[in-house]
Amino acid sequence: MAFMLCAVIMAAVPAYAKAKKVRVYKGKSAKYVFLFIGDGMGLPQKSATEAFTGEQLTMNTFPAQGMTTTSAANRFIVGSAAAATAIASGQETNIGMLGMAPSQKHVKSIAEMAKADGKKVGIVSSVSIDHATPAAFYAHVPTRGQYYDIDVALSESNFDYFAGGGLKDITNKKKNSKNFKGNALDLIKEAGYKVVTDKETFNAIKPGDGKVIAWNAWLQDSKALPYAMDMTEKDITLPEFTAKAIEMLDNPEGFFLMVEGGKIDWACHANDAAAFIHNTVAFDNSIKEAVEFAKKHPNETLIVVTGDHECGGLTLGFAGTKYGSYFDALQPQTISFQQFSDEVVKLWKEEHKGEAGFEDFQPTITHFFGLEFEGDFKNNPLIVKDYQLAMLKDAYVRTMKGEKKFKDPELYNLYGGYDPLTVTITHVLNNNAGLGWTSYKHTGVPVATSAMGVGSSSFNGYYHNTDIAYKIMSIMGMTPKVHASINNAEFAAK
Amino acid sequence: MAFMLCAVIMAAVPAYAKAKKVRVYKGKSAKYVFLFIGDGMGLPQKSATEAFTGEQLTMNTFPAQGMTTTSAANRFIVGSAAAATAIASGQETNIGMLGMAPSQKHVKSIAEMAKADGKKVGIVSSVSIDHATPAAFYAHVPTRGQYYDIDVALSESNFDYFAGGGLKDITNKKKNSKNFKGNALDLIKEAGYKVVTDKETFNAIKPGDGKVIAWNAWLQDSKALPYAMDMTEKDITLPEFTAKAIEMLDNPEGFFLMVEGGKIDWACHANDAAAFIHNTVAFDNSIKEAVEFAKKHPNETLIVVTGDHECGGLTLGFAGTKYGSYFDALQPQTISFQQFSDEVVKLWKEEHKGEAGFEDFQPTITHFFGLEFEGDFKNNPLIVKDYQLAMLKDAYVRTMKGEKKFKDPELYNLYGGYDPLTVTITHVLNNNAGLGWTSYKHTGVPVATSAMGVGSSSFNGYYHNTDIAYKIMSIMGMTPKVHASINNAEFAAK
Repeated sequence: MAFMLCAVIMAAVPAYAKAKKVRVYKGKSAKYVFLFIGDGMGLPQKSATEAFTGEQLTMNTFPAQGMTTTSAANRFIVGSAAAATAIASGQETNIGMLGMAPSQKHVKSIAEMAKADGKKVGIVSSVSIDHATPAAFYAHVPTRGQYYDIDVALSESNFDYFAGGGLKDITNKKKNSKNFKGNALDLIKEAGYKVVTDKETFNAIKPGDGKVIAWNAWLQDSKALPYAMDMTEKDITLPEFTAKAIEMLDNPEGFFLMVEGGKIDWACHANDAAAFIHNTVAFDNSIKEAVEFAKKHPNETLIVVTGDHECGGLTLGFAGTKYGSYFDALQPQTISFQQFSDEVVKLWKEEHKGEAGFEDFQPTITHFFGLEFEGDFKNNPLIVKDYQLAMLKDAYVRTMKGEKKFKDPELYNLYGGYDPLTVTITHVLNNNAGLGWTSYKHTGVPVATSAMGVGSSSFNGYYHNTDIAYKIMSIMGMTPKVHASINNAEFAAK
Repeated sequence: MAFMLCAVIMAAVPAYAKAKKVRVYKGKSAKYVFLFIGDGMGLPQKSATEAFTGEQLTMNTFPAQGMTTTSAANRFIVGSAAAATAIASGQETNIGMLGMAPSQKHVKSIAEMAKADGKKVGIVSSVSIDHATPAAFYAHVPTRGQYYDIDVALSESNFDYFAGGGLKDITNKKKNSKNFKGNALDLIKEAGYKVVTDKETFNAIKPGDGKVIAWNAWLQDSKALPYAMDMTEKDITLPEFTAKAIEMLDNPEGFFLMVEGGKIDWACHANDAAAFIHNTVAFDNSIKEAVEFAKKHPNETLIVVTGDHECGGLTLGFAGTKYGSYFDALQPQTISFQQFSDEVVKLWKEEHKGEAGFEDFQPTITHFFGLEFEGDFKNNPLIVKDYQLAMLKDAYVRTMKGEKKFKDPELYNLYGGYDPLTVTITHVLNNNAGLGWTSYKHTGVPVATSAMGVGSSSFNGYYHNTDIAYKIMSIMGMTPKVHASINNAEFAAK
């Protein structure tokens, strides 16, 4: 009976989540369409960013604001592949699937439809450009990990501009492709793409240069852009990739541009508030580029901003801080969890393994995160409490031993597969700032969707993520008649 | 420096939160206006309720859906008094203040304006009717704990219908009133109110009976209605109090009715998911009563539903359950945390103190919460894990010792001032269902506001809680000219 109960619950995606209420847009079609997807960006992420900066996010000033449910066909808590497929194609699908229905029948994305309509298409992401969210706009694979097949799909997309992070598996080193066609980067070049991997060349590219794929010289982790807080002026930022996209795509037939803020999610998986906040600011600054364009084309532009799901179970309140909020406590942090564990902790281990105790490492924590180890915590949220010191010491020992994967449920809850010391530091700092985390994975709370421009009022309300695709298709004037090949059944039925 | 940093942060309520964008409504005024306030009801509370029941909440079907920021004048995380003052009067104020600006100048509520306009007015709550949220509609006191003064204000309100919970301090036993006028219940009777405290009499009251104050015979805690899951058929439910309100208030001049789901908040403070879910269902069933009324008066009715703030830092994901959600694990719970600690734990302590160990108590936990102590947790979310068993045993020992208030920060994080055993049981059960909590207090994430009927589209968007009052006033046709005494400055400036 117990097992059955569990099995029943596993599949319980509420029926209401699948109800669709698409208003078919009757006005003049939008010629220029921007879709911004903040990966892992729920309402708490947006609010924490505003509270930290003291300024309203541009996306929150948009006239239309809706709430969007996110569940997948086979799981309440969605993953980025199923979420991106829903947003890109209007097709609810299973976890891990890209550009297809649960039946594996392919579905066309807004980007593919726009391209077929003669528009230019751009795809920008702060993570690898073959990662689940961008890939849902051009690839059709049953498993998001088929990076080689996705890279080949990119080469065959004929889209005009890919930019941000790199490519994860151009040589099929994962050996999970059944259809090897040669080095995917060669295929991309053969398809006519100019490949740009340094800032100087990037700055010089112009619309006449034809199809482009561009990434930053420094790809920090899994072929992604560095976290915004780790970048130097040598790096190309997400707003810069977005501004260049607009320059490259602008043409009389119009364009569709998708920009993903992909590392908001990764920072939230690791429970690092400062890292996701700085990346959310960068993401919002990318949106500002679109708003500037829209000012010049006010009656022809639609800008839609959404999140694909919340990540980390972030809340703006913590037991220990009660009703207090101390967002400024996040100001002293000058490094992402990733860079800290990849560089600082690694170097410390190499230089001091077996010799140095936690006390020796304390000044390094203070230097990069601002946490202090002496003083009265009642007067300063940066002061580490006794129980937090004990947690940090435990974590330090585990880090020095090289422990990382924890099967014990209690230890998993504490560290979630991250470097124990680094994740404990961000937990302590975030908690003292008045922020709580409950998970290292996504959560199932609805996200916010914002819109401005042509047809934007249809983004008010409370709707499932699949509706975002249908609304955009409708506002772009893309109908099943024009795209007879698509399998987007609910849309076709309208 | 440290102290200054802290002081600066304490006051940091973002400036954007105070920006107001009120659209003055130009259409036909609403004659019948409902305002439902789910205390502590953030987006996670609504989503968890939908996931548990498998049905969309009525409030989530409303055509207008907005997001509402909640901060107080002097704190990012709001309290119910400041939040209710903002929603009732459009006045942002300090924590704890009711019906007044930070300067202590009184502000008129929508309810008072409606009464002055010749409409009937009703105030319903599942907590005591002099609690912060209902009191903000008729009282003006600098401290929400002035229950006697609030009870006197109720007697002087001339509102037509008060119902739900009872009165907290009719004799000024807290001795915090500077203006004692005698027993407040006597004042209420002298003002012409019929006082109803049993279900039979309640069912029999009719519109011709004049002004009424009614509460349930069993007031569970702090003069509040019992939790929905603890009620029997002898009790009067929130939907029944709401239906009677409509019957009593319906008249050709129109009415304003505020209904608070007050114990959603209290259950969330205690981190008890089943308790808040059943109360959210009851709250939504109350909204259904208003929707039925609106169907009969489609062009004259406005229904607005909001939350005053999130509570508990609830998220729909927990580290230990990763991407899994097991909402059905909450089904076996048949008692609220309150009733369990008030009755079951109390009785056990009286009967077994010093004799019985945790193992003896296990069957009682299984009986009331469904948690099981043997089996493989991988196949059943109701199985208690080893580390959770250790937490329960620790908590059991503390409960048997009568420990409750914890100054130690680590212990406070674990128990938050609740009965250690009871709150640990709900933590374990909720976590295993895939739900996380981060706090025993409110949090600062925006809430959702839903509206249907006359002027409802103005509730789309992203706005501060004070805007709710101005929107309703505008849609009810209430202007500063009519209510020259009000100090609602921003409204007057329009």
